[in-house]
Amino acid sequence: MNIKGFTFSAVEAAIKKPGRKDLALIFSEVPAVCAAAFTRNKVKAAPVLLGQERVAGGVLRAVVVNSGNANACTGEPGLEAARETARLVAEAVDLPESEVVPSSTGVIGVQMPMERVKAAIPSLVKGLADGTLDDVARAIMTTDTFPKVASRHGSSGGKAYTVAGVAKGAGMIRPDMATMLSFIVTDAVVEPEFLRSCFLAAVDSSFNCITVDNDMSTNDTALIMANGMAGNVPIDATSPDASEFVRLLGEVTLDLAKAIVKDGEGATKFVTIKVCGAASDRDARVAAMAVANSPLVKTAFFGQDANWGRILAAVGYSGSDVDQTRVSLFFDDVQMVSGGLFVGGDAEARGSAVLHNPEFCVTIDLGLGDGCATVYTSDFSYDYVKINADYRT
Amino acid sequence: MNIKGFTFSAVEAAIKKPGRKDLALIFSEVPAVCAAAFTRNKVKAAPVLLGQERVAGGVLRAVVVNSGNANACTGEPGLEAARETARLVAEAVDLPESEVVPSSTGVIGVQMPMERVKAAIPSLVKGLADGTLDDVARAIMTTDTFPKVASRHGSSGGKAYTVAGVAKGAGMIRPDMATMLSFIVTDAVVEPEFLRSCFLAAVDSSFNCITVDNDMSTNDTALIMANGMAGNVPIDATSPDASEFVRLLGEVTLDLAKAIVKDGEGATKFVTIKVCGAASDRDARVAAMAVANSPLVKTAFFGQDANWGRILAAVGYSGSDVDQTRVSLFFDDVQMVSGGLFVGGDAEARGSAVLHNPEFCVTIDLGLGDGCATVYTSDFSYDYVKINADYRT
Repeated sequence: MNIKGFTFSAVEAAIKKPGRKDLALIFSEVPAVCAAAFTRNKVKAAPVLLGQERVAGGVLRAVVVNSGNANACTGEPGLEAARETARLVAEAVDLPESEVVPSSTGVIGVQMPMERVKAAIPSLVKGLADGTLDDVARAIMTTDTFPKVASRHGSSGGKAYTVAGVAKGAGMIRPDMATMLSFIVTDAVVEPEFLRSCFLAAVDSSFNCITVDNDMSTNDTALIMANGMAGNVPIDATSPDASEFVRLLGEVTLDLAKAIVKDGEGATKFVTIKVCGAASDRDARVAAMAVANSPLVKTAFFGQDANWGRILAAVGYSGSDVDQTRVSLFFDDVQMVSGGLFVGGDAEARGSAVLHNPEFCVTIDLGLGDGCATVYTSDFSYDYVKINADYRT
Repeated sequence: MNIKGFTFSAVEAAIKKPGRKDLALIFSEVPAVCAAAFTRNKVKAAPVLLGQERVAGGVLRAVVVNSGNANACTGEPGLEAARETARLVAEAVDLPESEVVPSSTGVIGVQMPMERVKAAIPSLVKGLADGTLDDVARAIMTTDTFPKVASRHGSSGGKAYTVAGVAKGAGMIRPDMATMLSFIVTDAVVEPEFLRSCFLAAVDSSFNCITVDNDMSTNDTALIMANGMAGNVPIDATSPDASEFVRLLGEVTLDLAKAIVKDGEGATKFVTIKVCGAASDRDARVAAMAVANSPLVKTAFFGQDANWGRILAAVGYSGSDVDQTRVSLFFDDVQMVSGGLFVGGDAEARGSAVLHNPEFCVTIDLGLGDGCATVYTSDFSYDYVKINADYRT
């Protein structure tokens, strides 16, 4: 995939252990306007603290990202390691240091092995000659089982452009800002303030609508760079092509967000939770997230058990307005509950059949108003426990 | 155990399936003053709706409680079933129906098998002649693996009295009001308003300080009955013996609450989470609960992995004030973190040794103020998933 003016690279730096590429570089040949969403966790990793400052500058040239070490809870030495990583890249490609953002994912509380990072930088920069976005997607994986890449092609005023991105996820995934790492690039020319507003909106309806385990990481980052190499007339809120760009960006982020849920740690099910008929959109989202996060609901999904009672219980404690006598519930198109009561008949057998599929939708109609929300979640399996009981070893 | 004027009974009604006692009765020979805390879930079981009305009357004589069926999401037929169960008991022991509270725990969304309940009532009432509180504790078990009974003896003005109670828990356990079933009885004479205030305080620092899976049930009830058969001068807030009664009641509820955590579904660890040095007690509790509820922290406990980074991440997203450079963390008396950083040396080995114990304490000092809180939690194991994937089958 070619996104004009962007090059990519990934190498093995053996940050946690040898045997795989774990250090990646995204590089723009020209200055790119940027926007980002970072974790709202008050315990922030060193690269997040540095990234916040540098994104505020409005222009970036490169992102250097490693897996295997989160560089979180590492204090002043950690901040210096993040700065040095960016500085080494900046020197190697002759950029101002402030236009390079470092990013990290992996184990918390371990200092970065800077000798190994330093040793890998020359080959990392050299690799820009023939690296791909897919290489980056692979290098940022931790417990992910497949790389996550999405792209769309559009045009503005006759000029073709591409929006493409990568993400990593798998665990410590919950809503409330970008909750994983994702890097999006586009060669479209986009007016900076419009880029910022439509990126944050896209994040809100993609990465903020997924949950795997309701744990918010110290490192979450979603970042976009637009380098303008497509040469179109700048897209802003008033452009005729604005809605197309918004749609394509939304599709790329939603593809990546869904891929994170599908690759949720130990996941065997991909479940869409739709709440409608809520008193407000906010209520709908609160109710959908309570269902999506409930360990009892998620273990029932794993057990392929059409246990709609646990779903109603989760809606009941979510904080959303609920009148239990008005609730309807469906597994795909099979109605299980009407007026808060089990519909009876063959619904149990038909609902159970739906839950045996690898993907299905739970629709909850609260019967109160027009509020709607859709979120995406996975089930809770033995393997989630296994992966996280043994993570550091 | 003899609590003057209280008798107990439990029989097999085969409510979910035959083979165990599943219907229990707590009976006071004289009217007892009462207080209760019910679930704040907006989806409330029929017996909870009825119980709220009847406890508001201030005087009770009996509680009839079943396991195997929650009588939740059962609509008007469910309410009628709860009323009929109480009415049948009231008729059999010649009481006003309004002084009998029904209570249920088990599967949601299934109508009560009233023919079987009705058939069991005569033997239930007959059993009061020789039943025990332990029989009640066993009859209300669902996924519990052991019965939960606690008692303390005290005296007031030379008159001996007893405070005793039972609880059931195991899953759908989270803070925010009583989050399971618990019934406490005492023969002490206690002034009603004082009973109510000290019971709610006891619930707040016991049942509201535990979490197994952060799921709030539709049926949670904690109820106390004081029948005054000890004949002491009524205990109220100004009594010299008030503090002893408060302490004993607190010990009984805390014993029961801890037993629920120890018997958490699939639990292999009993973990005390203490947060001190918070900006406020509320902040301390919020931080402690975030740690206690984090699936990533709980799976690390199961893996006996001294993964303090996940604990700091949970504190960071809890909503509590946090300055990561001031945080200290201990596993029992082994300091792992100082000033937000790993202390190094042999801490990893010593901390890991602590986590290999079946019970341990995690202390987090935020270094900001005087706020403190203690909560209790279990780990997250394969068996939690197994139990809940297969619950209805």
